[in-house]
Amino acid sequence: MERITIIDIAKMCGVGVTTVSRAINNHPDINEETKMMIMRVIKENHYIPNNSARNLKRAASKTIAVLIKGITNPFFNHMIKVFEEEIKRKKYSFFLQRVDENQDEIDVAIELEKEKRLKGIVFLGGYFSHSKEKLTQLTVPFVLSTIGMSEVVEPNEYSSVSVDDFNESYKLVDYLCSLGHTKIATITANMEDVSIGKLRFEGYKKALADHGVDYNADLVWHMKDDIESYTMENGYVVTKELLASKEEFTALYAISDSLAIGACKALLEAGKRVPEDYSVAGFDGLDISFYYNPSITTMKQPVGEIAEETIKILFDLINKKITHAHKTFPAELIVRESTRSLL
Amino acid sequence: MERITIIDIAKMCGVGVTTVSRAINNHPDINEETKMMIMRVIKENHYIPNNSARNLKRAASKTIAVLIKGITNPFFNHMIKVFEEEIKRKKYSFFLQRVDENQDEIDVAIELEKEKRLKGIVFLGGYFSHSKEKLTQLTVPFVLSTIGMSEVVEPNEYSSVSVDDFNESYKLVDYLCSLGHTKIATITANMEDVSIGKLRFEGYKKALADHGVDYNADLVWHMKDDIESYTMENGYVVTKELLASKEEFTALYAISDSLAIGACKALLEAGKRVPEDYSVAGFDGLDISFYYNPSITTMKQPVGEIAEETIKILFDLINKKITHAHKTFPAELIVRESTRSLL
Repeated sequence: MERITIIDIAKMCGVGVTTVSRAINNHPDINEETKMMIMRVIKENHYIPNNSARNLKRAASKTIAVLIKGITNPFFNHMIKVFEEEIKRKKYSFFLQRVDENQDEIDVAIELEKEKRLKGIVFLGGYFSHSKEKLTQLTVPFVLSTIGMSEVVEPNEYSSVSVDDFNESYKLVDYLCSLGHTKIATITANMEDVSIGKLRFEGYKKALADHGVDYNADLVWHMKDDIESYTMENGYVVTKELLASKEEFTALYAISDSLAIGACKALLEAGKRVPEDYSVAGFDGLDISFYYNPSITTMKQPVGEIAEETIKILFDLINKKITHAHKTFPAELIVRESTRSLL
Repeated sequence: MERITIIDIAKMCGVGVTTVSRAINNHPDINEETKMMIMRVIKENHYIPNNSARNLKRAASKTIAVLIKGITNPFFNHMIKVFEEEIKRKKYSFFLQRVDENQDEIDVAIELEKEKRLKGIVFLGGYFSHSKEKLTQLTVPFVLSTIGMSEVVEPNEYSSVSVDDFNESYKLVDYLCSLGHTKIATITANMEDVSIGKLRFEGYKKALADHGVDYNADLVWHMKDDIESYTMENGYVVTKELLASKEEFTALYAISDSLAIGACKALLEAGKRVPEDYSVAGFDGLDISFYYNPSITTMKQPVGEIAEETIKILFDLINKKITHAHKTFPAELIVRESTRSLL
């Protein structure tokens, strides 16, 4: 079928092309009845206004890319929704790009800049330990969202929104200590992680020290490199190894809820009870931490607020209102069934 | 900082612009040492080749859009990953577009066609009951992935990949009946659903009939309209109402694993045990159905295969190898801890 053009519509309606265009574009200078008649004809004939060129140009010049590491992580689901809504509200296009665990997100971003003429970038998740030299290769404003930054880069070289991973992790382990736990195992990130994983681990160590609990390296278990990180499967496999090690512990702190749920599964399969035999705590505040049996004690991150603030800062950068910004939100300790007091 | 141009790089290297271009584009007609020297200078100066125009054109003319209804549904996470990989392998751009529950996906697709000059579309999830007239407004090939179609549209009007929702649902309820359950409650879709929800519900009714079990409308509970569909929260709220109704039942079949987990939570909170007091079964085969406590009996969909086949059919359509295709994959009944025999 030949595609219908605006000229065909004008002919059918007995009006000029300009009038049809006015009807389509909600121009005020058109008779309301004429407009309704034209729109009816357009609808009946399935005419699609051919403004691709204009839209392409607009889309190409006003796109925000969200680069996400760990797209299967349910933690990001709600954030993506908020990003899209906020970006569309600003009349920008939203472009979601997945980054593989072993990909360098800055390299991906540089490629995207070339292809899409981006106006801004949000980096979501993943480790982030790029040098200043690397970061300066990015020519558009960017914000790191829920990515802990190590001291490698000066704070004035980038912008970020997250919780204070060190402090919130400290609070959770402090709570476990306050319940009388002294043998607290942890499932944490790889040794090389200098981002969120390191910060949460440092919080764990500080809380132990402040409670006079000796740090025991044999209670520190790292996620497996060959399994997707922060997943239930990773927590499950690591906890099986922890149990096989015969190392004694009364509580297990996993640095994500998904890891904690995998840990619970491994404990339950081994005939252990949670929290009677082992207390288990997570981090993030995923929905499933409430629905799991037992429900999981966790630090709930305010993901909606973090996502909104990320976009606010990004547009402040785009509009040159600010040069950089760092905002941390408090997380909330939610005590549930998976932890118990030894006192 | 002024952005470095290809002319600057050529000057620094003491070569012509064409030589720099050859180095960048891996042209065979360039001395290997010259090329290495140029690439080093490019790297040191953080030069970004400015081929936006070319890339834009290419990207604009070779894009596949995946329109997803229910982006927070973990069922789609792995599929999205496969879609992106397969589409990139074909050297096409991948564009992910979220569709709200109350949005018409065909309208969204028509808008996208205008803006992005799409080559093909994948519709993922959601209800799908559009008329032939509506579907013909789409001017590029499309495939419905994991969307059950009602009889409204002739099969030669579209292409689809999914499991046989009627049959697989039948098998699950047939299994529950074979365990001696006769009072089987179900959490199903809205009355208006003529897609997957209807098909799974029809499978439920047929299985009951084949076992000589009278259909009891009081055991049929619909997802809430004001809560995101197929979620844990929806299953949780509906099951609380089911319990409050005092209607007797021994098994509960939820048409998704997330609904089933919400149902378990409501039962556990009410002091009931699963499966001792109530058997619970889901559908989909999400990872969490294994990790939940108790683990959930479910019908596992082969999501990776479904996603791969979707892209294969889409490209067969684009290349005009076929006019339409329908492929159904078998699902797998996985019996776990959440169901028990009454016999």
